[in-house]
Amino acid sequence: MSGARQVDRPQDGHRVRVRRLGVDTQFEPVVFMHKECAVCRSEGFVAHNRLLLRAGERHVIATLYQVTNDLIAHDEAALSESAWSRLELNDGDTIAISHPDPLISLSHVRGRIYGNELSDRALLSVTSDIVEGKYSDIHLSSFITACAARPLDHDEVLGLTKAMVEVGDRLSWNAEVVLDKHSVGGLPGNRTTPIIVPIIAALGLTMPKTSSRAITSPAGTADTMETMAPVDLAIADIHRVVEGEGGCVVWGGAIRLSPADDILIRIERALDLDSEGQMIASVLSKKIAAGSTHLILDMPVGRTAKVRSREAADALSAGLIAVADAFGIKAKVIPGDGTEPIGRGIGPALEAHDVLAILQCWPSAPRDLRDRAVALAGALIELGGLAEHGRGAAMAARTLDDGRAWAKFQRICEAQGGMRTPPVSSHRQPLASVRTGRVVSIDNRKIAKLAKLAGAPEAKAAGLELHVKPGAAVSIGQPLCTVHAEARGELAYAMDYAAVNPDIITVQER
Amino acid sequence: MSGARQVDRPQDGHRVRVRRLGVDTQFEPVVFMHKECAVCRSEGFVAHNRLLLRAGERHVIATLYQVTNDLIAHDEAALSESAWSRLELNDGDTIAISHPDPLISLSHVRGRIYGNELSDRALLSVTSDIVEGKYSDIHLSSFITACAARPLDHDEVLGLTKAMVEVGDRLSWNAEVVLDKHSVGGLPGNRTTPIIVPIIAALGLTMPKTSSRAITSPAGTADTMETMAPVDLAIADIHRVVEGEGGCVVWGGAIRLSPADDILIRIERALDLDSEGQMIASVLSKKIAAGSTHLILDMPVGRTAKVRSREAADALSAGLIAVADAFGIKAKVIPGDGTEPIGRGIGPALEAHDVLAILQCWPSAPRDLRDRAVALAGALIELGGLAEHGRGAAMAARTLDDGRAWAKFQRICEAQGGMRTPPVSSHRQPLASVRTGRVVSIDNRKIAKLAKLAGAPEAKAAGLELHVKPGAAVSIGQPLCTVHAEARGELAYAMDYAAVNPDIITVQER
Repeated sequence: MSGARQVDRPQDGHRVRVRRLGVDTQFEPVVFMHKECAVCRSEGFVAHNRLLLRAGERHVIATLYQVTNDLIAHDEAALSESAWSRLELNDGDTIAISHPDPLISLSHVRGRIYGNELSDRALLSVTSDIVEGKYSDIHLSSFITACAARPLDHDEVLGLTKAMVEVGDRLSWNAEVVLDKHSVGGLPGNRTTPIIVPIIAALGLTMPKTSSRAITSPAGTADTMETMAPVDLAIADIHRVVEGEGGCVVWGGAIRLSPADDILIRIERALDLDSEGQMIASVLSKKIAAGSTHLILDMPVGRTAKVRSREAADALSAGLIAVADAFGIKAKVIPGDGTEPIGRGIGPALEAHDVLAILQCWPSAPRDLRDRAVALAGALIELGGLAEHGRGAAMAARTLDDGRAWAKFQRICEAQGGMRTPPVSSHRQPLASVRTGRVVSIDNRKIAKLAKLAGAPEAKAAGLELHVKPGAAVSIGQPLCTVHAEARGELAYAMDYAAVNPDIITVQER
Repeated sequence: MSGARQVDRPQDGHRVRVRRLGVDTQFEPVVFMHKECAVCRSEGFVAHNRLLLRAGERHVIATLYQVTNDLIAHDEAALSESAWSRLELNDGDTIAISHPDPLISLSHVRGRIYGNELSDRALLSVTSDIVEGKYSDIHLSSFITACAARPLDHDEVLGLTKAMVEVGDRLSWNAEVVLDKHSVGGLPGNRTTPIIVPIIAALGLTMPKTSSRAITSPAGTADTMETMAPVDLAIADIHRVVEGEGGCVVWGGAIRLSPADDILIRIERALDLDSEGQMIASVLSKKIAAGSTHLILDMPVGRTAKVRSREAADALSAGLIAVADAFGIKAKVIPGDGTEPIGRGIGPALEAHDVLAILQCWPSAPRDLRDRAVALAGALIELGGLAEHGRGAAMAARTLDDGRAWAKFQRICEAQGGMRTPPVSSHRQPLASVRTGRVVSIDNRKIAKLAKLAGAPEAKAAGLELHVKPGAAVSIGQPLCTVHAEARGELAYAMDYAAVNPDIITVQER
């Protein structure tokens, strides 16, 4: 059995010259080779095989596509942008190509489907393989679905959280209390973080906030913040910003805090699915890796919010607090009204406009968003020991009103790389009321869907601007909201959806 | 809201000129466009978006990759081979490109994950969208995993079976009794179909057999048969073969009998997973669509077979028979010994060699495979009313012994397009016993894995040849089996696996 290596397969795979093909496949590394080349023939490679590509210390697992004409020579491999940049190549370099090792950890996923519990060790091996890029979309989707259909139990959530922390980087801070805040999404426009961080930092507390991009929503905090300042900071830069200003609002994905989460989020987004256990592990792995010690969880509850009932909120809160506690994090959940959107704008730049209006204390700034930010900042101030129970909110409000929060926000943006003006949409169309009457409801999910069809979050200026709240009296033809887009096709796509969904904003005759 | 169409998006999408890029992406249709072209900019398309491509009456949903150099001009789209052939294009043709409709049926998959039952209507809409190519790998994998983690109930299996039949073509025959046979796989080498069909057809009964390719095994019947005759026949050709010869062994996938099944099988293979409900729907949708009236189910039972215990066999049998009955098919399950592989060869061509040896009545032909084929043919003869209970097997054996089955097999192969000689491997290596003693067990799963690593079923000549059976006395250094491959890399890959898995064939000292 030991003679296997004697057949002339190179020990570390076949070496071939590489070329940059100039093809953007986003996250997915792709390698193009000639179907009749020596490597494909001798290894039996066929299209859609997953191959291990190595260049020096770096490696990546790439999907193979095969070319049947002279686009690719027989002695070269052409790489997509994602594969090219991850291997840090130059034209004419060589790489080693081989079969990846068999995906042993997939047996844990299969076991989970059939009802076995996932041990800490199994979760670590699945998570490591995910971060190594060994899981295809098929494997990732199966893992996520299996953990949603048979919910993860407490031990599994702990194990998954631990594994997600372990396979990434960790931050640590020279502060006894490191505050953090997370919003259990689902409420369009609920963009409180860029308001809270400068309030907290202005008061001398430490709040190094790493945020995510949108999962299933039209904008994540990182997407919104990015329209005002750079958010993809390296670890050293984050330390510099936080040491100088006491706070930051950066994208967690840029710094490999719980990198498995970023991979899983893409799949959850495609499925429009997040399960409770995954959500807890996702939220807390980021917080643990970020070095947080105290955490406020903003949880809007409402029929069309992510958390639909008080019972669901209680169950999720208990799960979050128990897992946080196991990792030494003091967590508190602040439930809120999730029956309608908060603020006016929905979409990265449109939400940034709301944030700036509140920080700059314009009289026209959306009151509900300001109130929510003040309440959450107040809870953080109390958790951080700067005010007694019941006194935090007033302290937060003063910090906003006297301009300290706005000044701090500008300094944070400058420290992160320079303040920017959010982009403005090039295509707009109002959605008019079809009758005179009263606004009785706004469907959070459909509003979010509309904003996404208009291009958010990829198109930063896209989304929508709400002109009414439930209870408002409106006349026929009056604009209920305005859809913003960066491309005509996307505007049309959103308006098509609005045309067949009259209950996005429901108006009843009196 | 009605003004949406007035923004200048063409009613049916953007028309662009197409070019054949010569890239083989297998089943996945891919469209390459320039990142800065007018269509991508105006529609907001980004890489990995799924786009609807239309050409005349034909359409396909393709994955977008974007090119950033002059590989693709701004006014053209380049297509992968799969997209090109499905749209039946010529160079210079134009196609219309647009966003596909939102994937509404995915809400049924999400509901299923959260515990809702799938109605007939929901299953039909999911299945239709799958066949239309609207489900990405992420969506397909989630659907399959959801149906495995919370098993489908009887009504759901009926609904899925019905939906899978409905979205494909159906065959009908001028015969009152149309016999069929299915093996609930998992037993390497159990290739009885090409032996059974000529026996049955030689006796004047009708057996139009549509077989599948391998799901998780090293060879499906279609893979094996293809090494002896063409199997991808059109419906008219199948009718011609069966009318002339009374039987055929063709690939069901070539004729859109339950086309959803072929798509799901690819995902199940990647996950190495088939759940009971999916398996029942998969098996029976093919049989219903094939117009079968009487069905024998071969079910090997053993610790390392697909069905591991008598209890599991009973449950699966009950499910299969109940669903078959609901569709008017008389089904009978024949359990068998699944503790060890059957026959000698494992892999398409190696199994074909066993089949030919039995049909040609060589004394050296594997006895266990012949016995199993005779038993199943006997059960079919009885089910078809040609022999009384207990007399079928003897009739089947006579048909083999006097050469009628072999003569019929040759005529069937000729009618299918001409008999072929199975290919022979170019690379081989024996696996030698590490001690003197007795063979105590052969692990079906590991044997199958070994054959797959050697290249089966894609490499037709790859797989392995067993030289021993459990109970055999062997000496140290004696070959237990020989691994066959078509490529050196694959041979090495298989031998690496064998080196770290000493229990593929276990030999104990006496």
